[in-house]
Amino acid sequence: MLHLHFRHDLFVILRDFSGLIQVLIPQDESRSELKKAFLGLTVESVVMIKGRVQRRPEGQHNKNMSTGEIEVHAETIEVLNTSRKLPFEIKEMAKKSEALRMKYRYLDLRSGAMQYNLRLRSQIVMKMREYLCNLHGFVDVETPTLFKRTPGGAKEFVVPSGDPGKFYSLPQSPQQFKQLLMVAGIDRYFQLARCYRDEGSKPDRQPEFTQVDIEMSFVDQAGVMRLIEGLVQYSWPKDKGQINVPFPTMTYEQAVKDYGVDKPDTRFGMKLIDLTTAFQGTQIEFIREALVEPGGCIQAIRVPEGTKHLKAKDMEYLKTWAKTQYGQEVSVIHVRADGSLKSPFSRLLSDVAKEQLLQMAQASAGDLIFIIAGPQEIVRPLLGKLRLQCAELLERCGVLVRDPSLFHFLWVLDFPLFLPKEDAPEKLESAHHPFTAPVPEDSALLYTHPHKVRGQHYDLVLNGCEIGGGSIRIHNASQQLYILDTILKENPSLLSHLLEALDSGAPPHGGIALGLDRLLSIIVGAPSIRDVIAFPKSFRGHDLMSCAPDFVSEEDLKPYHISVVWPSTNTQGQQDNPA
Amino acid sequence: MLHLHFRHDLFVILRDFSGLIQVLIPQDESRSELKKAFLGLTVESVVMIKGRVQRRPEGQHNKNMSTGEIEVHAETIEVLNTSRKLPFEIKEMAKKSEALRMKYRYLDLRSGAMQYNLRLRSQIVMKMREYLCNLHGFVDVETPTLFKRTPGGAKEFVVPSGDPGKFYSLPQSPQQFKQLLMVAGIDRYFQLARCYRDEGSKPDRQPEFTQVDIEMSFVDQAGVMRLIEGLVQYSWPKDKGQINVPFPTMTYEQAVKDYGVDKPDTRFGMKLIDLTTAFQGTQIEFIREALVEPGGCIQAIRVPEGTKHLKAKDMEYLKTWAKTQYGQEVSVIHVRADGSLKSPFSRLLSDVAKEQLLQMAQASAGDLIFIIAGPQEIVRPLLGKLRLQCAELLERCGVLVRDPSLFHFLWVLDFPLFLPKEDAPEKLESAHHPFTAPVPEDSALLYTHPHKVRGQHYDLVLNGCEIGGGSIRIHNASQQLYILDTILKENPSLLSHLLEALDSGAPPHGGIALGLDRLLSIIVGAPSIRDVIAFPKSFRGHDLMSCAPDFVSEEDLKPYHISVVWPSTNTQGQQDNPA
Repeated sequence: MLHLHFRHDLFVILRDFSGLIQVLIPQDESRSELKKAFLGLTVESVVMIKGRVQRRPEGQHNKNMSTGEIEVHAETIEVLNTSRKLPFEIKEMAKKSEALRMKYRYLDLRSGAMQYNLRLRSQIVMKMREYLCNLHGFVDVETPTLFKRTPGGAKEFVVPSGDPGKFYSLPQSPQQFKQLLMVAGIDRYFQLARCYRDEGSKPDRQPEFTQVDIEMSFVDQAGVMRLIEGLVQYSWPKDKGQINVPFPTMTYEQAVKDYGVDKPDTRFGMKLIDLTTAFQGTQIEFIREALVEPGGCIQAIRVPEGTKHLKAKDMEYLKTWAKTQYGQEVSVIHVRADGSLKSPFSRLLSDVAKEQLLQMAQASAGDLIFIIAGPQEIVRPLLGKLRLQCAELLERCGVLVRDPSLFHFLWVLDFPLFLPKEDAPEKLESAHHPFTAPVPEDSALLYTHPHKVRGQHYDLVLNGCEIGGGSIRIHNASQQLYILDTILKENPSLLSHLLEALDSGAPPHGGIALGLDRLLSIIVGAPSIRDVIAFPKSFRGHDLMSCAPDFVSEEDLKPYHISVVWPSTNTQGQQDNPA
Repeated sequence: MLHLHFRHDLFVILRDFSGLIQVLIPQDESRSELKKAFLGLTVESVVMIKGRVQRRPEGQHNKNMSTGEIEVHAETIEVLNTSRKLPFEIKEMAKKSEALRMKYRYLDLRSGAMQYNLRLRSQIVMKMREYLCNLHGFVDVETPTLFKRTPGGAKEFVVPSGDPGKFYSLPQSPQQFKQLLMVAGIDRYFQLARCYRDEGSKPDRQPEFTQVDIEMSFVDQAGVMRLIEGLVQYSWPKDKGQINVPFPTMTYEQAVKDYGVDKPDTRFGMKLIDLTTAFQGTQIEFIREALVEPGGCIQAIRVPEGTKHLKAKDMEYLKTWAKTQYGQEVSVIHVRADGSLKSPFSRLLSDVAKEQLLQMAQASAGDLIFIIAGPQEIVRPLLGKLRLQCAELLERCGVLVRDPSLFHFLWVLDFPLFLPKEDAPEKLESAHHPFTAPVPEDSALLYTHPHKVRGQHYDLVLNGCEIGGGSIRIHNASQQLYILDTILKENPSLLSHLLEALDSGAPPHGGIALGLDRLLSIIVGAPSIRDVIAFPKSFRGHDLMSCAPDFVSEEDLKPYHISVVWPSTNTQGQQDNPA
């Protein structure tokens, strides 16, 4: 009782999720009915076949098929459903365009890769639940998704209610509820939580996604980290190798210094190198100018054997990219076979400086060095991205830079609690969210130098992707109020229920949330989280199968006391409305 | 490290989710610091105490406390958080008003009953997952909640998108997705699915709720029923007794005939009795009139020893209720101690008729018989409700009618596939949903007498509540099209993706959905599903803790191209908008 797939008129190949098997159709006249039934069928029809399993004759074994040594000699066939002629074969589905795959998702999911992804997802999630619920006493609590808009929740979908002008909001995470559960005495909470985020057309984001949401009372940072390491290790698929714990840690400061990013891919080197000292008193004008600016520095990455792999057009591409995205010049130094440097400004460098440069970069013949001069807060992230771009370019040349079979977990710690607001740098905003507790020894700084306070926040990074983040939370109501009111200038009345709860005997608590879709996509090596989600939306947030979102008649909107405001520039839109 | 609760100045009682323990505070001068720390604390503060566990002195054991034979002799105390003075004690929470409990849900959840309910819910769900995923090879697949409005989905919340005039819809169930997963070759699917239904202010309904959603390929009705029986048995809490399988079955016809309802509470008798033959050729005018109408009948229920328990005011209440709700007269017959009948029309009954009536009702001295004459489609549901009302009245008098420790599961089968439309009885609508397959032997009737077709639908009933419903689905595209288009007169283009999928090699399939909240509330004996949900909405759909839903500024609505239509009768509303 399997999906059907013809090969030729004597055999058919049957498929179900577990694999393929060859069915032999008897050719003798007395069984002509059976043959006729098979011949009338279309590919992908559903049949129930009864027959005998037999070894294939000597010499007819198929070593490319796990059932290649046997075949089924059909005795009866029942056609359970026929299929129309499909516009493509299932095994070719993965090569089709994203849009076609999404439109016919129910066919796309029949592919071996998608079956593997969805079934593995289910198994990993089950193991996670066993670990949390059965081994560690966590309570699986479902929290509401129809909630109140959070302060500054610009990315929250709104849901009109029957009360005029009043809306629910689909929360980005159960953050408030998990903390309230700690106050409520559910000392160990977890949930595979559906979360919502309206980000328009960001690539590889989904308007709804799933996080493994965890919160514990009476726990410290190390306690959460050990729990998560155990969770990952316990649920890790056997065919993906072993995971060693504890995971390495790195401070935020170190990550940004060495990798130019707070989620470093530690599967490969090419770290950022600070060359500032090598260029002290340099003749090179643009470097000299950069170094006198506040935070001015000169930094580099070295691409081993880069001269061999990267072409002139690659350099051009990288230079243009840096110029347009960051307004920065990238200088490239080639280390020649004889150890001499080829660079636009090499003649301006003293031999000592050249020597120092090579030594600091640990460069040798054939390497490329990318150099950028400018303020540190621009140079670091730029080089961080350049590093990843170079890795990609090298991989296209067949160099194994980031081994896809390696899984490098990393904890990043000691984040700043606040960052300058992007649009108003004199004000502060939470680096993560306003509920993160300060590092205890920095607590006093809250009232004097809040920008210097580190938060008890921890990010879990896997192969350069942030797959989780969490923190020890503030459990003291007056500290929470001070941060909301005095530091962040938020209206605390919007969170009065949480402040009251913290003031009602809240235990110390902390937690974490893991991005399940992202984690899964890295485990299976999928290029997109869409490959580990059964029915994902397109990058524009559309369901291409059912055509959601869709128009709703004004009549159907009446109970919600809303009406559509058609954009004035596009009066055509109004006529599309089938109301 | 527990919640604190004072008793007197020498002892404190500590509480966590696992229970209470008594802590002894040393009174000697050398430990005055410790005493001082305790005395400064408020009730419900959070402390970490270290000390020695000791047996209480002889004669001071507390048999009402599971830890009543021991106490902790405190050596150190660390105050982790203090609590403000709370407006009520936790142990009195359950007696408070619903509104107060909801506003301070984080305190309400500290009660022993709510801790039990939430923790049991987590355990039962975990057992269900083990059964489905680990024992039966089901795949846990998450399906989207931002979807397209389904045809006639009047109870679906809408979610405005960034595309002008286009809305997502929060689906009432993953029905389409679970069927598409069958087409996709996920042969056994389950999900603890969040579902949404906008029903305004229906009592004991929630705008979001959870169902155990299951679908299987290559299964028949019995296959689904056996699976669910195993699931319930496996996940049933040990302290609630044993569940025997298979569950009894009853046809829809039988249920309506005997109990006046399709979800009979079989924990007690008082079944409907048809007395029509006893009243053939009766002199009683209103009965004679009722009997000549189409479908006219006279039916009754007998309340054993009803004369002893039900008072005159109870009869009055029931009569008034029947009159106002159904426009029907209820006649009451008292069976006197001597076996004679007391009734307004007993003088109009012949002795033979009286004898026949007593015999048919199996009535004896002290019983009450409620009689209703009228069309069957009114009399049956009315008597069905009267039966439940009588049970409630008897229970208020202390008679055990519905034993709360009994769990009577029942499958109700052979539902009609279609019912006359309530507002247009000449048209048909699906009794459950348009995807239910007809009973195979009734398939031909689809094209000739569709109203006679029975569906392969099954309801699971527990103690008179429907806790689940499912069906074998239509897997034939042309049959599905015929039902949508010709019988139901729905626009099939809205479901074209499903019809195409059925035509692409869909296996035969069927499934079920269990209402988790309702099931849990019956298991724990809670009066409302709100008692098994961590953060429920009020019956008007409000979150009383955070005050959701709430106003959203016109500015925040702009990206969604909607604006609020304020009701013209209430211009005040507009001024409430803080925009």
